[in-house]
Amino acid sequence: MRKISVGVLGATGAVGQRFVQLLAGHPWFEVTAVTGSDRTVGSRYADKVNWILPAAIPAGVADLVVQPTQPNLDVPVVFSALPSKQAAEWEPQFAAAGYAVVTNASAHRMTSDVPLLIPEINPDHTALIAHQKIARGWAGFIVASPNCSTTSIVLPMKVWHDAFNLEAGVITTLQAISGAGYPGVASLSILDNIVPHIGGEDEKLEQEPRKLLGTVGEGEIALADMRLSAQANRVPVMDGHIGSVSVKLSLSPSVTEAIHALETWSPPEICAELPSSPGRVLIYHPDPDRPQPRLDRDAENGLAWTVGKVRACPVLDMRFLALTHNTLRGAASGSILNAELLAVQGYI
Amino acid sequence: MRKISVGVLGATGAVGQRFVQLLAGHPWFEVTAVTGSDRTVGSRYADKVNWILPAAIPAGVADLVVQPTQPNLDVPVVFSALPSKQAAEWEPQFAAAGYAVVTNASAHRMTSDVPLLIPEINPDHTALIAHQKIARGWAGFIVASPNCSTTSIVLPMKVWHDAFNLEAGVITTLQAISGAGYPGVASLSILDNIVPHIGGEDEKLEQEPRKLLGTVGEGEIALADMRLSAQANRVPVMDGHIGSVSVKLSLSPSVTEAIHALETWSPPEICAELPSSPGRVLIYHPDPDRPQPRLDRDAENGLAWTVGKVRACPVLDMRFLALTHNTLRGAASGSILNAELLAVQGYI
Amino acid sequence: MRKISVGVLGATGAVGQRFVQLLAGHPWFEVTAVTGSDRTVGSRYADKVNWILPAAIPAGVADLVVQPTQPNLDVPVVFSALPSKQAAEWEPQFAAAGYAVVTNASAHRMTSDVPLLIPEINPDHTALIAHQKIARGWAGFIVASPNCSTTSIVLPMKVWHDAFNLEAGVITTLQAISGAGYPGVASLSILDNIVPHIGGEDEKLEQEPRKLLGTVGEGEIALADMRLSAQANRVPVMDGHIGSVSVKLSLSPSVTEAIHALETWSPPEICAELPSSPGRVLIYHPDPDRPQPRLDRDAENGLAWTVGKVRACPVLDMRFLALTHNTLRGAASGSILNAELLAVQGYI
Amino acid sequence: MRKISVGVLGATGAVGQRFVQLLAGHPWFEVTAVTGSDRTVGSRYADKVNWILPAAIPAGVADLVVQPTQPNLDVPVVFSALPSKQAAEWEPQFAAAGYAVVTNASAHRMTSDVPLLIPEINPDHTALIAHQKIARGWAGFIVASPNCSTTSIVLPMKVWHDAFNLEAGVITTLQAISGAGYPGVASLSILDNIVPHIGGEDEKLEQEPRKLLGTVGEGEIALADMRLSAQANRVPVMDGHIGSVSVKLSLSPSVTEAIHALETWSPPEICAELPSSPGRVLIYHPDPDRPQPRLDRDAENGLAWTVGKVRACPVLDMRFLALTHNTLRGAASGSILNAELLAVQGYI
Repeated sequence: MRKISVGVLGATGAVGQRFVQLLAGHPWFEVTAVTGSDRTVGSRYADKVNWILPAAIPAGVADLVVQPTQPNLDVPVVFSALPSKQAAEWEPQFAAAGYAVVTNASAHRMTSDVPLLIPEINPDHTALIAHQKIARGWAGFIVASPNCSTTSIVLPMKVWHDAFNLEAGVITTLQAISGAGYPGVASLSILDNIVPHIGGEDEKLEQEPRKLLGTVGEGEIALADMRLSAQANRVPVMDGHIGSVSVKLSLSPSVTEAIHALETWSPPEICAELPSSPGRVLIYHPDPDRPQPRLDRDAENGLAWTVGKVRACPVLDMRFLALTHNTLRGAASGSILNAELLAVQGYI
Repeated sequence: MRKISVGVLGATGAVGQRFVQLLAGHPWFEVTAVTGSDRTVGSRYADKVNWILPAAIPAGVADLVVQPTQPNLDVPVVFSALPSKQAAEWEPQFAAAGYAVVTNASAHRMTSDVPLLIPEINPDHTALIAHQKIARGWAGFIVASPNCSTTSIVLPMKVWHDAFNLEAGVITTLQAISGAGYPGVASLSILDNIVPHIGGEDEKLEQEPRKLLGTVGEGEIALADMRLSAQANRVPVMDGHIGSVSVKLSLSPSVTEAIHALETWSPPEICAELPSSPGRVLIYHPDPDRPQPRLDRDAENGLAWTVGKVRACPVLDMRFLALTHNTLRGAASGSILNAELLAVQGYI
Repeated sequence: MRKISVGVLGATGAVGQRFVQLLAGHPWFEVTAVTGSDRTVGSRYADKVNWILPAAIPAGVADLVVQPTQPNLDVPVVFSALPSKQAAEWEPQFAAAGYAVVTNASAHRMTSDVPLLIPEINPDHTALIAHQKIARGWAGFIVASPNCSTTSIVLPMKVWHDAFNLEAGVITTLQAISGAGYPGVASLSILDNIVPHIGGEDEKLEQEPRKLLGTVGEGEIALADMRLSAQANRVPVMDGHIGSVSVKLSLSPSVTEAIHALETWSPPEICAELPSSPGRVLIYHPDPDRPQPRLDRDAENGLAWTVGKVRACPVLDMRFLALTHNTLRGAASGSILNAELLAVQGYI
Repeated sequence: MRKISVGVLGATGAVGQRFVQLLAGHPWFEVTAVTGSDRTVGSRYADKVNWILPAAIPAGVADLVVQPTQPNLDVPVVFSALPSKQAAEWEPQFAAAGYAVVTNASAHRMTSDVPLLIPEINPDHTALIAHQKIARGWAGFIVASPNCSTTSIVLPMKVWHDAFNLEAGVITTLQAISGAGYPGVASLSILDNIVPHIGGEDEKLEQEPRKLLGTVGEGEIALADMRLSAQANRVPVMDGHIGSVSVKLSLSPSVTEAIHALETWSPPEICAELPSSPGRVLIYHPDPDRPQPRLDRDAENGLAWTVGKVRACPVLDMRFLALTHNTLRGAASGSILNAELLAVQGYI
């Protein structure tokens, strides 16, 4: 099979670098275009990027010339790692010009006709794409990945919502510093410290799960009917977001039933066709001191959810902790899975 | 005034060292006896203690000879920094022998006739002492300090309970490593990591506030009628526990009313007589990124509560974050305040 | 005594904040002017500063209006916390206009007629001031503090140089993140990591001690005749720089003699007249695991040198470790001591 | 090829676990016996080990029954991860009984007739084995791996010693916490701190390189004639030891020549036959801020040396920084390479 050429928008930033790294050797996609800021345009990628990942820059991309972020790239698909403000401006222009825009940016996540997508959770939401193209008059389209903190908690919520109807959830997150990009959080701010505030994060945690667990309606997603309350905290951990969640479940399952639902859940069948799909998507860990970021974030190449501490909640109904790797499952790898889904579904 | 001689039980451990340090120069108390394990008994304190605090060992204590932990010390008051198991065994023997035992250990916190005490919250609970002495036939008595994580969240809970009737609370804590004593948490366990489990801590967080906010009944405390749900996490921070709490309040106050209650609260009048009482007991911090351990733990010599992020909760009624210094307000300093209260009330 | 009004140049940055904090309540100096960047000029200091220190902004300074960094402040003395490039431009203009410029910036440290000053080490170097004013035609003058890493190691070097003639030294430093200011080092760069490079630091460590230990000549300092080799490393520590140093000493003292020289050294008599002078300037610590940043940086309000691990060196002659608090002794407090010295000597 | 059965002595500790993990899937060796302390003997390995590594316990070992550490295991080769004191007692008994003992313990490293071995450095030192067996009357033998800090610096020392004759070196190390095993360093000791003392480490750093770079003599190694001075520091980093080294080289090469020697060095030919041999053994990194633990420790599966900052030394002749992964190249993986070498050379 001939590989599909793809571009990476904002390829020199922290998330952009992850896209470049993860797409090296991908069976279906090949990075043939990278875009960057004025400082970098016209230069060799390897000469201008401040590469912060341990492994070396993939050979095929190192020599690419950085292009401006404008919709004249010679590729059908672009992965967007643009900052939110630039994403708001440029992603629609790429979509209008016919590109499939697979974005990790927050700009269009809650836009009503843009699918907010995790293949294991709502692969059917891509049905919005047809509406989106017609309504906007676009030759292309946009699909978005959720915020990395949303991702960390949403899979067990989905499993229990399907099984027991999740009415409400109180969420506290402990989020790694890599979620803030580079340079991101100053070391003086976070060493020996906690910062109990991440701008806009609480709102994302309270809204995005409702869209991911919503249902496809007339040209938009009907948000799931649930109330969520979130408190996001930055902690001195490199990678891996933990969410501590108490939920109200209409069917009031026992702890055994709640665990059983997690252990017997399996992803939609279409996920088996995605080459990046992890062997185990949801790992239920019975030890009382799990999940832990350093021990669990790299499970299944950073694509698994690790869930633990399922206990009855004296105030609501049930509690759990969930963890994912925020820059892999929660960012670049998640978007690549989205693109793989789009390929299998024939959208690209 | 002649100072009251006091002993420190378990004086060589982490909490014991804090007692020794904090009691140096105390206006009412003077450490004249220290006890320790077999390894240290009979030796000069300074020769056997593995002193882990930055400042030097107070001169008056350095030369004391370590005594066995047995009720034949020549002091009327003992501060107990014993491990839980030893506390369970020895504290009753000291009380029986006539000592006032002011303990930081967990062994007797939930014992029905032992006051669990924070002077700013429930100074009237010392009324239990008379019952305790009669029922047990003790010449002395035991009063206990709550767990350091309980302490961090209980003051704002009390203020709102008094004002709005607190029915329920969902609590997630982020707790510093010093809470585990020395050597405590292995660096390999916590560097670049979170450990979402502290043995017995969730249960303490779910029970102790109910006793602190309870009322004095016939020979025991009637626990406050509230449901609490707790998830305690260890984080790579030296000192300072944060609690993130969502609460259900019967009177459904507005955010403005909830903040007003905190800002206008003042401690019981008797607290003004305690020499260690901080100038400000409850600091409401309006910035969205506070409290933070490194910035707020040392407020008022580590004796203040810093409360922030008061917001409406979409699931329950109201949310807040609270922070105290876990080894000062949450441990040794808290017990010293308890002893000062006992002195003012005439119990010692 | 009426206090001397002083200004702080660059008062909103990390070092500027330290000046503001440390000068609050100073017996001789009072901050009555603060300068800042265009963003802050014309506003109330407290409204524009991103205050990063635990304690609150001193009341007297909070309400000052930020002025531009230009030599029309109504004070005779300015403390400069300017970035190096701005210091190079503005400090001479302030000196020309008659101000006593007491700088912590690097711009003029190695300028031949500018004293590089630590009161305990070379108080006689202020003799250069007369030369400087004449040669430059300035009504005022500049005196500089050394780099914080230089400071950490230079006192034991001085003691041994005076006693045994120090010919050469191999220096490796472990430097705290606060040395880089705010935001300074990205947390992604330094958590669970070492960065073995601090721009220009090795050169400063190899040159500045030679000037500090040099002698006053004709309008300049004759550098001490010694070869120094430095490797500076950034480590994940908040405050406190350690230097590990091996030195060649002409007189080849024994370890006992080397330690004796440290223990019997006392600062120049004039230091007793400086109100910020610490009780103990040089603390020799005999334990094999000292100095340590967290345990020793705050000794004597962050103004002491802690020296340890004095051992024979199998390659050169003698080894030691030395530590100071980099933002106190190594920056703001050091400059304040310099200003106190200037006051005692009649220069201000 | 039938795999060689091997045992792991002390298999439940931190290094023992690494052996178990790294030998899973090894092409030549298969773990069929594990030994442990009294607490674990007789139980299933997976039931008693406090497994601290991220990946799961290899299936083949999980079900092994833990045996006592006595020379009646049904394997010809044992990897020893015993604590030093136990190693001193038991390793000779295993050697006497005919086992090939490949040890990571320190007990016999400097024993005159025990090869201290790194295949890339001194594969010819195994010639001592014959002497050892005769002199001791042993049916088996012992070969040892050097200390992890020695390993980190010794390869560039060897390259320059061969090329330019290394006469002396001043060494300062920054060592990761995993070097101390589990639980090892208390988090209260090392968070936001440096501990400038590791018991016995300075002596190892000053002696072991001389043996590794020595020559095979009559029944012992003639130590290389060089003076070394070492200062070891513990830093808050998970994995990866850095050494900062200044050396005196008789032939006084230029920086260009010194770098050229590193870049053109290649390992002895026999290393190509070892299945664990890394593709690149010595990586010279030209960036001024490398090596860094987090970025370089995992190069070549943690088996490479990363060397950087080669500069002229104003005091001696030349400086460099070197880094290796302390629990892989510096411990378990290094011993496995030693066993592979012994297999190729026909000793096992």
